[in-house]
Amino acid sequence: MITDKLIDRIRELSAPIVVGLDPQLSQLPNCVKDNHLAQINESPLGDAAKHVANAFEEFNKAIIDQIYDIVPAVKPQIAMYEQLGAAGIECYFRTVDYAKQKGLIVIGDVKRGDIASTAEAYSVAHIGKLDIDGRKYSPGSASVHARPDFLTINPYLGYDSIEPFLSDCMEYDKGLFVLVKTSNPGSRDIQDVVTDEGIPLYAHVGRLVQKWGEDMAGRYGYSRIGAVIGATHPNEAKLLRELMPNTFFLVPGYGAQGGSGKDLKDLWVKDSYGAIVSSSRGITGAFKQEKYKCDDKDFALASRRAVLDMKADLGAYIE
Amino acid sequence: MITDKLIDRIRELSAPIVVGLDPQLSQLPNCVKDNHLAQINESPLGDAAKHVANAFEEFNKAIIDQIYDIVPAVKPQIAMYEQLGAAGIECYFRTVDYAKQKGLIVIGDVKRGDIASTAEAYSVAHIGKLDIDGRKYSPGSASVHARPDFLTINPYLGYDSIEPFLSDCMEYDKGLFVLVKTSNPGSRDIQDVVTDEGIPLYAHVGRLVQKWGEDMAGRYGYSRIGAVIGATHPNEAKLLRELMPNTFFLVPGYGAQGGSGKDLKDLWVKDSYGAIVSSSRGITGAFKQEKYKCDDKDFALASRRAVLDMKADLGAYIE
Repeated sequence: MITDKLIDRIRELSAPIVVGLDPQLSQLPNCVKDNHLAQINESPLGDAAKHVANAFEEFNKAIIDQIYDIVPAVKPQIAMYEQLGAAGIECYFRTVDYAKQKGLIVIGDVKRGDIASTAEAYSVAHIGKLDIDGRKYSPGSASVHARPDFLTINPYLGYDSIEPFLSDCMEYDKGLFVLVKTSNPGSRDIQDVVTDEGIPLYAHVGRLVQKWGEDMAGRYGYSRIGAVIGATHPNEAKLLRELMPNTFFLVPGYGAQGGSGKDLKDLWVKDSYGAIVSSSRGITGAFKQEKYKCDDKDFALASRRAVLDMKADLGAYIE
Repeated sequence: MITDKLIDRIRELSAPIVVGLDPQLSQLPNCVKDNHLAQINESPLGDAAKHVANAFEEFNKAIIDQIYDIVPAVKPQIAMYEQLGAAGIECYFRTVDYAKQKGLIVIGDVKRGDIASTAEAYSVAHIGKLDIDGRKYSPGSASVHARPDFLTINPYLGYDSIEPFLSDCMEYDKGLFVLVKTSNPGSRDIQDVVTDEGIPLYAHVGRLVQKWGEDMAGRYGYSRIGAVIGATHPNEAKLLRELMPNTFFLVPGYGAQGGSGKDLKDLWVKDSYGAIVSSSRGITGAFKQEKYKCDDKDFALASRRAVLDMKADLGAYIE
């Protein structure tokens, strides 16, 4: 079961860490950017997206090569690829494929949320297969047919927006992470609204997510329906851990967004393996930090060093 | 201003109708499907998505040719295209481009919701432009660079997930429709939760959406931040119309999902131009209904007849 596999890898590597792959053109090292930008400047603007996508792919592969043996998972953020149109979607699925070839578990950060046949189509798009007159396959890139292992999902439309993913989850051993309490300041606008039961809305949503996954617990007691709980809210996390004993947490907001290792302690209350912490720019942009200063071409080595430091920072709370 | 343009077209055509373009392989007429399926069966499975995308594009263009002069807008549902991977995203943007060439306003039903640089990337992907060293262009399809006029957005992450779209909305004259109360039964799970103020959550979200758009009212008094309000909840719609006087409504759930013209009366309480009603399968699948029975090859004419009937059904409430 995919959540068990993820926890097994976290234990093997002593690293409850997922590296976000969210490339941005302005953030790439010059050694990656210059070559591809030169090609953009020499070709029609209509081809630009393809060259940017090639730069993203080169960057992602270099990072993956330096981290695949020390972290269990990566999390590509599809928005960064989607902004390049069809060429970006090619790059997204090629990145998913490369990461899986290297043995990484892949969390597709897509935050989709819709109902009925639309949700089924999203499931086909990201974890399932397209049925063409009884033949089934997974489009994505024209050349690779890889699928992420987990997807992030937005719960605002209710269980109707979760249920259509579950048969593909069972058939292809996939999992979901449902947004419960996100790491951004604006999460207060809706998620913190107090209900007439006297609890915040995120706690209501947390209970629903726990219930939706209740019958699917694996070896470690966690179901394949996980939850996204921001690292920037340690008190909220403690409450949610109590309400959601069978729910594995994906925790964004570490590093660049301000969360630190000690904020995360409460997420491990039940046992040592209840959560995985995400960091994106803190790892992939490490080469820009004074602490990891290096030759531009060694940018991926800086990411490796940043992962090892993050592992040490989190270490106190996982043993 | 785009909301004014949409209302102008609704008035010119006496048709507060948007046609959903949500193609599914199993729902296409044989005259469209057979030719493309034959090519799929003769080629490697890896090419299948491209042939399905070609079938979707042929279907969409035929429908658009029959309705562009009687409705103001179309609403492609991106999930249906996304399930075909990169080839589907090509088809999505080619459909957007074709509809815009025919003078239609296009609502991209993407329901995205994320924060900060991720939300900015979604804005670039769907309504903005990619900045490459100061040169700006809109990727999407490799060959066309069209963008929808409106996007649907999920509000669960709060104002942080709306604000990043607003500068592109202003610069390129685009608009948003934020999910408030959706048409599906499961919308009760979260949207109907009663807050400690004694109002349902959707009313709280509705007030936020009204506030977010308050300073952007156009000639008709409606802002460029609209709301999605399901046709299956007439009483809720009446409350929301009162709470949201400057918010234009996109109303799904007519037809196939059970809403009818008389359910929609309350959405026009403020004046005659406060909402546009969406129908997808009820229009694009009309050729399958007994009422519009026709030769398979006349499927798009059946859609035209279904639009005219829908216009008559809604007519009592718009003059």
